[in-house]
Amino acid sequence: MEQIIPFNKPHITGKEVHYIYDAVASGHISGNGKYTKLCQSFFEERFGFKRALLTTSCTDALEMCALLLDIKAGDEVIIPSYTFVSTALAFVRQGAKIVFADSRSDHPGMDEERIEELITAKTKVIVPVHYAGVSCDMAKIMTLANKYNLFVVEDAAQGIDSYYINTDGTKAALGSIGHLAAFSFHETKNIQSGEGGLLAINDERFIKRAEIIWEKGTNRAEFFRGEVNKYGWVDTGSSFLPSEVTAAFLWAQLEELDLIQEKRILLWNTYFSAFTNSDLREVRLPSIPHYATVNGHMFYLVCNNEEVRSGLISKLKRDTIHSVFHYLSLHSSPYYKDKYIGKELVNSDKYSQAIVRLPLFFDLSVMDVELVLKKVKEFVK
Amino acid sequence: MEQIIPFNKPHITGKEVHYIYDAVASGHISGNGKYTKLCQSFFEERFGFKRALLTTSCTDALEMCALLLDIKAGDEVIIPSYTFVSTALAFVRQGAKIVFADSRSDHPGMDEERIEELITAKTKVIVPVHYAGVSCDMAKIMTLANKYNLFVVEDAAQGIDSYYINTDGTKAALGSIGHLAAFSFHETKNIQSGEGGLLAINDERFIKRAEIIWEKGTNRAEFFRGEVNKYGWVDTGSSFLPSEVTAAFLWAQLEELDLIQEKRILLWNTYFSAFTNSDLREVRLPSIPHYATVNGHMFYLVCNNEEVRSGLISKLKRDTIHSVFHYLSLHSSPYYKDKYIGKELVNSDKYSQAIVRLPLFFDLSVMDVELVLKKVKEFVK
Repeated sequence: MEQIIPFNKPHITGKEVHYIYDAVASGHISGNGKYTKLCQSFFEERFGFKRALLTTSCTDALEMCALLLDIKAGDEVIIPSYTFVSTALAFVRQGAKIVFADSRSDHPGMDEERIEELITAKTKVIVPVHYAGVSCDMAKIMTLANKYNLFVVEDAAQGIDSYYINTDGTKAALGSIGHLAAFSFHETKNIQSGEGGLLAINDERFIKRAEIIWEKGTNRAEFFRGEVNKYGWVDTGSSFLPSEVTAAFLWAQLEELDLIQEKRILLWNTYFSAFTNSDLREVRLPSIPHYATVNGHMFYLVCNNEEVRSGLISKLKRDTIHSVFHYLSLHSSPYYKDKYIGKELVNSDKYSQAIVRLPLFFDLSVMDVELVLKKVKEFVK
Repeated sequence: MEQIIPFNKPHITGKEVHYIYDAVASGHISGNGKYTKLCQSFFEERFGFKRALLTTSCTDALEMCALLLDIKAGDEVIIPSYTFVSTALAFVRQGAKIVFADSRSDHPGMDEERIEELITAKTKVIVPVHYAGVSCDMAKIMTLANKYNLFVVEDAAQGIDSYYINTDGTKAALGSIGHLAAFSFHETKNIQSGEGGLLAINDERFIKRAEIIWEKGTNRAEFFRGEVNKYGWVDTGSSFLPSEVTAAFLWAQLEELDLIQEKRILLWNTYFSAFTNSDLREVRLPSIPHYATVNGHMFYLVCNNEEVRSGLISKLKRDTIHSVFHYLSLHSSPYYKDKYIGKELVNSDKYSQAIVRLPLFFDLSVMDVELVLKKVKEFVK
């Protein structure tokens, strides 16, 4: 029987269950225990976030951003249309009007040159999404935000250990640039805990309130630091914190971040360097801007149109290789299309129809990638 | 060294990590896999819920209720003031005005006789909280709800495997009576997964939409059942579903539900039968209404006043026994007191000052309980 190459297989380092045993033995299994603190410190120290708070999902981290920024009915939030539902939903839940930005023509990330025309007196937040872990032009976006006094929330769901390269050559970790940022540890991500997320806070003004919102609107954190003598309901919030079981699982993954990244980037480079665009004809390679690094999260090809994509996916499926398409433009989703009054978003629609993602996960071998490449070559020639 | 008796110690059956291994090995670690389905079917079959959906917390299950009931700014929701923050917060996040009900004089549950006077044209939901797993008078509450066309959301955070006894002697599981209900699997609960919750749906009209709201507002469930040929953004929602790691942990606990309940109820009865109220003088026993069962979730005493309670807690602490107070009235919390315009809620305030909870957990022995009882007796005599 021929070997099936799945699109994704969640990687397990082997220590997850060991650390879960340890958490369970400690008797503290609810949130904000030893492993939560280990994970949070890791993110703060390695990526320079002022404060990191684990959440049960990236959606929840984005909801915390919406609550921290006091998003209310009528506020406008600029997000790319080519993104996962949660980027919009977290702000919609607070009553925001979503203003959808188009993607760049060369890249699925939001077109930084077209943001300014979307800003109105009601605009409160810009949410750049680092698609495939490839940075948006953060210098441009932060300059715009400063000019119009807006907040920036980085949707870094796919952006762990990826960087924006400043003009002087220094690097800033994705998630460390905007006022706030959100990461995902869904099983499809480089580092995963099944479901899971992280809020990164770079603007220190938000730290104290974030701790309150995280713990159901109570000042429990201050209580346990001895700053108040009882704790109670002081603000809005939710139960955003994951259990120590989830945090222990995540810690095992974080310990192997470098190894995981090395392997994923190797696979990504194997894909990327196998072709030139002229070899590919009806499909093209991803374009990586000069200010962005690659974190090996995802390798995709851009097909000339939906028919070519369907053909490629079908061809690979016959060869027992599982490749998949990705987002559908949110501005034309069943939920939003009647509310949408902006321009046609041609690039977002193009990527909705054109992107195909190829298998890329830690346990994939370079030989597997070469097999996928062989089959893609059979299709494009 | 004297043995310390903690207030709570989360129970581990021993199979949690085994099932987590199995989930991990299956390659499906994100939400809605095998263990999620096992847990959900268990609740549906054992307690008669029409549909059960695991959530990351009881707070999240209550938020799902608020979304399903389309709670909007101006809507009024009646909840007891003597409850955990989340009961109110889930509705506050959607813009509801909270109308606080007082507790009964004989029991911390909401006073069913005083609900009707709180109903206005804007009232949309009544949220009875089954304090300590002891049922509210659900017949009275459902009759009121029908009369005024209101929804009932049972906050059954503490109510697993506890029952409302109908006048004909038949029993209905808590969470199976209202239109919707929420359970908690926080480490302090009878059945726990560190953090965790469950939405129970009894009114079938909510099932389809609940599945959508659960999965980030997408019709993913319909897609995987083959009812639609692609899935996208169709409604509001969030990422409410826990990982298979969490569900696998919970499944190990559910398998031992009967054993856990038997032990907890034995301990509860040991406490309850040790005294009469006349023995206790300045404290009194919990009052269990004739229509309610005991699920061994919590054993508490009601002190005559805050000084007596402080004295008892201090005395037990000197004897290395950890006892704790409980909620503070939400209507007088820092977050709500300026918004609160209703009457004084004397019973809620009384329980805020008077309740002391004694150690009660699976791994506690009857001998431990007898030691606690001995020390309580020293205090009350």
